[in-house]
Amino acid sequence: MIASPPPGASPAAKNELEEGGAFTPHFDADGLIVCVTKDARDGQILMLAYMNAEALRLTIETGVAHYWSRSRRTLWRKGDTSGQIQKVTEIRTDCDQDALLVTVEPGGDGGACHTGRRSCFYRKIDTGDFPAKLVFD
Amino acid sequence: MIASPPPGASPAAKNELEEGGAFTPHFDADGLIVCVTKDARDGQILMLAYMNAEALRLTIETGVAHYWSRSRRTLWRKGDTSGQIQKVTEIRTDCDQDALLVTVEPGGDGGACHTGRRSCFYRKIDTGDFPAKLVFD
Repeated sequence: MIASPPPGASPAAKNELEEGGAFTPHFDADGLIVCVTKDARDGQILMLAYMNAEALRLTIETGVAHYWSRSRRTLWRKGDTSGQIQKVTEIRTDCDQDALLVTVEPGGDGGACHTGRRSCFYRKIDTGDFPAKLVFD
Repeated sequence: MIASPPPGASPAAKNELEEGGAFTPHFDADGLIVCVTKDARDGQILMLAYMNAEALRLTIETGVAHYWSRSRRTLWRKGDTSGQIQKVTEIRTDCDQDALLVTVEPGGDGGACHTGRRSCFYRKIDTGDFPAKLVFD
């Protein structure tokens, strides 16, 4: 895995990034790439997290999702304590290769959120209110 | 919109962030919050982008998705040049309120990616190969 050219560096580099067949993930200044995780069963978005190069390498090599915890500053194999191991069925990247979309089959109770809910996105923003309120559903 | 307490600040603040009914989005050091955009029609993930407080306020107030372009360093109403205006049908936030999941009805040709494709995630990583290659589909 090599660092990709910064988006907008040159038209040729941009074209290679967007239309090329080489996976050259672009990590940010902290060495991280953002990752959206989706349930293979029904497409529900489970969580949003980050990977560093090591977490991404381990995810690809083992087929089990690894992340970088920004709060604990440590590599983290999802499910090691919760049992919610995520078996990866697909990884996609976006046009400028600075985001990942990972599809998983979650183990354990099938959830992903540390609060006990299946998805971390368990609250909807009530946009009719000001200031906006959150609605649980 | 006020800044939320940093995750892990105190158990009370963490609990309010995760279980409270107040929308207190947590913007990063650059003043941005990451945003995953989903198509209301079939749940396909269209793109990943960022909002600053102003883009989020405009999105909530107008019901049309606004983002912050990190490369152009400018506020950006999606679709202004492409016609791919995104009518927002739902906004969700995650447990620690540092990510958004926005559901939209895309206008124009129904796509979201500047390369002309419907979704920015048009390439799958071939994890059997080393170094990993990208597969268009």
